[in-house]
Amino acid sequence: MRYSLGELAERTGTRVHGDPACVIEGVGTLHGAGPGQITFLANPRYKRQLGETRAAAVILGEQEADACPCNALVSRNPHLTYAHVAALFAREIAMAPGVHPTAVVDPTCRVHPAASIGAHAVLGANVVVEAGAVIGPCCVVLDGSHIGEDSRLVANVTVYADTVIGRRALIHAGTVIGGDGFGFANDAGVWIKVAQLGRVRIGDDVEIGACTTVDRGAIDDTVIEDGVKLDNQIQVAHNVHIGKHTIIAGCTGIAGSAHIGSRCAIGGGVGVTGHIEITDGVTVTGTSFVSQSIKTPGVYSSGVPLEPTEHWHKNFVRMKQLDEMARRLKSLEKELQELKQKG
Amino acid sequence: MRYSLGELAERTGTRVHGDPACVIEGVGTLHGAGPGQITFLANPRYKRQLGETRAAAVILGEQEADACPCNALVSRNPHLTYAHVAALFAREIAMAPGVHPTAVVDPTCRVHPAASIGAHAVLGANVVVEAGAVIGPCCVVLDGSHIGEDSRLVANVTVYADTVIGRRALIHAGTVIGGDGFGFANDAGVWIKVAQLGRVRIGDDVEIGACTTVDRGAIDDTVIEDGVKLDNQIQVAHNVHIGKHTIIAGCTGIAGSAHIGSRCAIGGGVGVTGHIEITDGVTVTGTSFVSQSIKTPGVYSSGVPLEPTEHWHKNFVRMKQLDEMARRLKSLEKELQELKQKG
Amino acid sequence: MRYSLGELAERTGTRVHGDPACVIEGVGTLHGAGPGQITFLANPRYKRQLGETRAAAVILGEQEADACPCNALVSRNPHLTYAHVAALFAREIAMAPGVHPTAVVDPTCRVHPAASIGAHAVLGANVVVEAGAVIGPCCVVLDGSHIGEDSRLVANVTVYADTVIGRRALIHAGTVIGGDGFGFANDAGVWIKVAQLGRVRIGDDVEIGACTTVDRGAIDDTVIEDGVKLDNQIQVAHNVHIGKHTIIAGCTGIAGSAHIGSRCAIGGGVGVTGHIEITDGVTVTGTSFVSQSIKTPGVYSSGVPLEPTEHWHKNFVRMKQLDEMARRLKSLEKELQELKQKG
Repeated sequence: MRYSLGELAERTGTRVHGDPACVIEGVGTLHGAGPGQITFLANPRYKRQLGETRAAAVILGEQEADACPCNALVSRNPHLTYAHVAALFAREIAMAPGVHPTAVVDPTCRVHPAASIGAHAVLGANVVVEAGAVIGPCCVVLDGSHIGEDSRLVANVTVYADTVIGRRALIHAGTVIGGDGFGFANDAGVWIKVAQLGRVRIGDDVEIGACTTVDRGAIDDTVIEDGVKLDNQIQVAHNVHIGKHTIIAGCTGIAGSAHIGSRCAIGGGVGVTGHIEITDGVTVTGTSFVSQSIKTPGVYSSGVPLEPTEHWHKNFVRMKQLDEMARRLKSLEKELQELKQKG
Repeated sequence: MRYSLGELAERTGTRVHGDPACVIEGVGTLHGAGPGQITFLANPRYKRQLGETRAAAVILGEQEADACPCNALVSRNPHLTYAHVAALFAREIAMAPGVHPTAVVDPTCRVHPAASIGAHAVLGANVVVEAGAVIGPCCVVLDGSHIGEDSRLVANVTVYADTVIGRRALIHAGTVIGGDGFGFANDAGVWIKVAQLGRVRIGDDVEIGACTTVDRGAIDDTVIEDGVKLDNQIQVAHNVHIGKHTIIAGCTGIAGSAHIGSRCAIGGGVGVTGHIEITDGVTVTGTSFVSQSIKTPGVYSSGVPLEPTEHWHKNFVRMKQLDEMARRLKSLEKELQELKQKG
Repeated sequence: MRYSLGELAERTGTRVHGDPACVIEGVGTLHGAGPGQITFLANPRYKRQLGETRAAAVILGEQEADACPCNALVSRNPHLTYAHVAALFAREIAMAPGVHPTAVVDPTCRVHPAASIGAHAVLGANVVVEAGAVIGPCCVVLDGSHIGEDSRLVANVTVYADTVIGRRALIHAGTVIGGDGFGFANDAGVWIKVAQLGRVRIGDDVEIGACTTVDRGAIDDTVIEDGVKLDNQIQVAHNVHIGKHTIIAGCTGIAGSAHIGSRCAIGGGVGVTGHIEITDGVTVTGTSFVSQSIKTPGVYSSGVPLEPTEHWHKNFVRMKQLDEMARRLKSLEKELQELKQKG
């Protein structure tokens, strides 16, 4: 894969600064890129590395162009332009259309001839796989599920019955979609299963990381709207609703019936309580605990600072005394006021 | 699937309020149910929705019956009655008894003729699968494990050697039972593996969610007693013991040799330190950190509030000063007391 | 498996205290071991159990030897000696060399005749599997990956394309190595995938637990050095670097481009922010949040204490007032000082 810089500019709608004939054969980091490689500068934090780069070309913003010691692609959104360029250098693992002879496909399935069903994949009754979709090796898709056009389950993915996955989804390995929600009724101390009768419905252009779990709804469906991106090791409980173009980082857990708005950004390791609502456009920083609804867009955090363990022990103990300390502070203020008035 | 309300009352031991001939064809939420659907009211929080429901019937308590605008099933435990009704409407995915031709079953295995071994499942030497048990597609059960009557491994589940699973277990996809506990001895800075020689023993009526991991014991066994319910993405380390009818929500991690009592309820995202004991009947709320044994039943919490990030930064810094603040507060109190006595 | 105590001493380089002819047939805990079993005493906390043990022999330190009521193996590192002994009693599940007839191996692969490819395993194009390596049942190894000598993928493991795994690795079930890092560029509110062009490189003697995920790099590689031990349910994001002989407990999440030094010990449920550096020899206790680089070796903690929920509520509210409390405290100190000077 080789492109001239001019060709890249044309494909990405950007402007060449320097030599359009310069040949690009791959990508690199600002620090590590060498001859033949293109890199990008999106975060101003790395601007001082620009002068030292040995890259053949840098994707950058208008204001950085003059400081660039080499060729450049000038872009209004250098990170986006980098995404477009990187896609050109990505090695696609071709999956030949058709059903691998070791796959087990129920005769009631409807698999498009331009779909690919991998080795040892298993499809239950009435599964539908649309054109261009790829069901990777050792994936299991249970009865009645629908995999939309150009969607891909990479490997060892499990999709439970009646799940609906839209177009161009990318579901990474080990992930489980549509498992039973965690619902039990208590019968004198013994937990009795509540059948989970809803489904999971996933929109278009959704990416879900590895070993993530999305549970089916109890009665209504669990819903993941268009353009949502979920990282690895995320738990999405039953009847959660995630709005369009929201992005959630790894290890986050979202409890049942939580409703997360559109264009939110939820950091890694966050816990979201059940039955609450997060409005559109909210950012929650990593490892925060969202215990109540968030009604105003903005950036939210919780979490406590890391300290050498010996210091931490001392402050840890005081946290249990906080309310008492606050009361003592108030009482001191009152006493001091009285003393002053007396004096 | 269609039942008259009278038939549902009979099957669930409840009383009809209204028309027993009313036909029920499915379930819905209090808010969303329409004609032909039954719903339930268990949480008083939703009582005000009762007046507006368009459901054909509502499962509710005696005290709500008169306020119900439609037919009702009157129950002492509406959530439990709903569980019984929902089970009637659950679509069972039939697994035909017998061994799928693509399954790989070691000739030393003992598989009951009324068990079902799915496509591409793999059973090691001397595995026993009892009557009614279902080993789903792409599950791997290693040597010497025992799967009890009517237990089901859904798909892509891995069970390591010598694991014992009781009757009526439901193990969801992607879950791993019996992996090595995390045990290493330090040899001058290099970690040397400590062979994990214990097993995992799981009682009857246990449900384990998707992508959950339960490690085998180091010497003795890891034990999960009857009726325990574990959600998705939970980590149960070696030699943990979980008592009967305890329920644990998603993303919780339980460190080695922790002993959790019976009928506990542990919220999601909780961390439990190793080698501690939680007595029977303890509730721990979500995202708490259990750093010490809990000896008295009750409800326990930890965790810090979410705030707009700019406020949080200010309070975050103060947490490191808590002990110092407490000392200054005490010294102020002393000084003020002296001042008062002088005055 | 039976060994005389003298034989065990010879194999482990330790000294017999008592009868070298004593026959050992298995291991047990200090509390639970009976006749024919050997146990160990490494943690002084359990010293008082020594007098009551019914074990045939105990592995212990020089200073405990005289207090031992039975035979002993005297060792400078009893836990390490136990590791050596336990390895002798571990049941190895033999995997016959060769390719199982149900495995799907691309003709371009290079599989050493002394490697074992399990039932229903799938190997993509140009995969290399070295001598003694075991690819367990239902594992998927995608194009161009390299599995080193004597490494083992247990079952249902997924290895993405171009991953490099060194020698003697042990990768537990359900784990995913080399999935795409979580990288997206924002195009007017819509997230556009950034192709993840780096790889995962794993050194020698690495163990990775079950359902753990290690993402491939965005441009450069994600690197796990020799001797690293990762527990279950860990998330390692793109371009993370983990130094030699570092050990990380379950449920920990490490964000992108974090650099963790050598011989660190990271507890369970820890969150590590992206783009930070943890120097060599750092210990972080369980459930801590590492929000900044750690430049000095030592032990670090964060996290808040567990309390009965009613008390916790009161302190929880005060955490939002901490900065205000600190200001009021300072102002009180000033006023009191003025009052004293006046008086």
